[in-house]
Amino acid sequence: MPVGEHWETSLRHLAFGAVQAASEDAGDQVGIQALYVANMLAGQLSHQEHLGALIADFTGMRGIEAVRSEAADASGGAAFRQGYLAVASGAVDTVMVLGVEKVTDVVGSRRVAALSTMMDADYEGAQGATPPSLAALLMQRYMHEHGIDLAAFAGFSVNAHANGALNPNAMYRNRLKPEGFTKAPLVAAPVSLFDAAPEGDGAAAVILTTSERAKDLVPKPIRIAASAAATDSLSVHDRADVLFLSAANLSAGRAYEQAGIAPQQIDLFELHDAFTVLTALSLEAAGFAVRGEGAKWANDAAISIKGTLPISTFGGLKARGHAGGATGVYQIVELAMQLRGQAGENQVDGARIGMAQNLGGLGGTAITHILEAPDA
Amino acid sequence: MPVGEHWETSLRHLAFGAVQAASEDAGDQVGIQALYVANMLAGQLSHQEHLGALIADFTGMRGIEAVRSEAADASGGAAFRQGYLAVASGAVDTVMVLGVEKVTDVVGSRRVAALSTMMDADYEGAQGATPPSLAALLMQRYMHEHGIDLAAFAGFSVNAHANGALNPNAMYRNRLKPEGFTKAPLVAAPVSLFDAAPEGDGAAAVILTTSERAKDLVPKPIRIAASAAATDSLSVHDRADVLFLSAANLSAGRAYEQAGIAPQQIDLFELHDAFTVLTALSLEAAGFAVRGEGAKWANDAAISIKGTLPISTFGGLKARGHAGGATGVYQIVELAMQLRGQAGENQVDGARIGMAQNLGGLGGTAITHILEAPDA
Repeated sequence: MPVGEHWETSLRHLAFGAVQAASEDAGDQVGIQALYVANMLAGQLSHQEHLGALIADFTGMRGIEAVRSEAADASGGAAFRQGYLAVASGAVDTVMVLGVEKVTDVVGSRRVAALSTMMDADYEGAQGATPPSLAALLMQRYMHEHGIDLAAFAGFSVNAHANGALNPNAMYRNRLKPEGFTKAPLVAAPVSLFDAAPEGDGAAAVILTTSERAKDLVPKPIRIAASAAATDSLSVHDRADVLFLSAANLSAGRAYEQAGIAPQQIDLFELHDAFTVLTALSLEAAGFAVRGEGAKWANDAAISIKGTLPISTFGGLKARGHAGGATGVYQIVELAMQLRGQAGENQVDGARIGMAQNLGGLGGTAITHILEAPDA
Repeated sequence: MPVGEHWETSLRHLAFGAVQAASEDAGDQVGIQALYVANMLAGQLSHQEHLGALIADFTGMRGIEAVRSEAADASGGAAFRQGYLAVASGAVDTVMVLGVEKVTDVVGSRRVAALSTMMDADYEGAQGATPPSLAALLMQRYMHEHGIDLAAFAGFSVNAHANGALNPNAMYRNRLKPEGFTKAPLVAAPVSLFDAAPEGDGAAAVILTTSERAKDLVPKPIRIAASAAATDSLSVHDRADVLFLSAANLSAGRAYEQAGIAPQQIDLFELHDAFTVLTALSLEAAGFAVRGEGAKWANDAAISIKGTLPISTFGGLKARGHAGGATGVYQIVELAMQLRGQAGENQVDGARIGMAQNLGGLGGTAITHILEAPDA
């Protein structure tokens, strides 16, 4: 089911669909021992906390260990990392990581207020700052510092929509024209509708196991070559340098070290394009672009599916849709499909090593994973 | 600071106090690499999600990995288990687990509604069921099935308050008389004020590291002999047997197996006495009491500090106070103090092996840890 407005589908039913899809992929013999649920806002928007036990039961896994991980919109990456650590510890050998978010039942100021709880409630939320308004400040500053105009960012959204157009699970499958970008209705100047990723309901799930078991279960198991997490000040104003995503930089650096690779060896990068300025800053923080030159990649063919560093290959947050705490799991699932060569029209040729980076609260949390194809 | 109504202290300041206390205990050289935060309701009651990054920054640990774990009022146990798995994986060697909850800023029906989100929102919460009303159904059924009256449960609260009276961090330090128990104002018949644990603001923190490092850091490091988690249906009505806490039973059974011990070897048991009926059912589920005879322990000297199976040794949820997602961390801290012989007036003589069991949503989640003293 695409990310979108699923008023007819409850939170638990969204989760069920994703659990079922992952289970079918892994086969009958998989035997899940623990469930890690990523979710950001069910307590506020669906009056439901305690999703671990709820979803384990509803999806036919009553009794197993189940817990929710939350790190705002980096919850998906956080839950995946928890699952990874659990298997690595030897305490369990097969776990499922599920991301699920249902945001569209609530509209208007209540939804905006809920989304703002991912930022600092006392120093940002209570002052009326929302994620788009804070992203707008970053974008304005970026444009000022680096002497570029709004149109310079257009290519990121154009690329995301070009890829989303090919993805049946994308929220928006329309293509964007660069000239439309600067004319789009504003969300918080200069951030516009064509700049900010849309919030949607969604769920995605993935199964992790030991390398020994993986070989028996599926023909092309994907290896986790690196997993790393870091944080930054939640308050954007309190960061040493607002145009440097230090958590993204730290976690990417640790991930390269663990995997024993350089950024240049990454074949594709699923980054956290909640706003185009985050795309530019992520390319800089992860070592692909020089400081101040991330936005130049917007109009570079390198980021397209046929390029040297494809990003947002299934549409990214911008076109596939931003399903809150589920987004980080979508990134992992999409990366795994690419590395298995199962990405269909979205396939990146010869994808062997991919990176996913999930940000929470405009970079307050950053979780980076590097995955490798079996023949990498 | 005792669990209680801390209107003058914000969520982050509560957390700061606990982080500081744990850091002082471990010394300057500890070097925390990751922070696991347990919290249940900050999104709903303090408009603040994303506590990992927020608290890491506010407590002077900006940059480190930080994530929140949530499993209703079993969040504390869940976060402790995440920390344990992280260290066991080898990915990090020293982590902090922090539980923090701030519930008293919101009163009346809004707080009750928030607490009810730990149960099944669609099948319980939306029908008006709250945790106390569901506990009342369990208690009524227990009394009916086993032919006992309300007074039979009094001893659990009397014991908890007797222990809480000695604990400077307890929310209530008054002693209870057995004859007062049945006359207390009702919360949800037959559950009364003297039966249900009070909700309070609180925070507690503990540091986990490898056994090698632990020996260098503190004179009496405590060993984690077992860690296990399980779930049950969140909806109480949907459980195969409402008077059997199957998740508590499963996780305790796994914990005994991991530790290689029998229940009889446990020197003290920090159980989840949110309601006295849960105390009775926990004693049964964990293998200390025969089915239907858990309540008999209420008036047995065995559960007192001087007894053979002391429970709620610092007052338990009932008298120390139930600080939501922080409660499971309080249990671990209290157990560690007992095993180090640092429990002061609450000390259980000769405590060598202790068990903590944290329940979420009336047993929807159960997380069990067995800790051992260095000389055990």
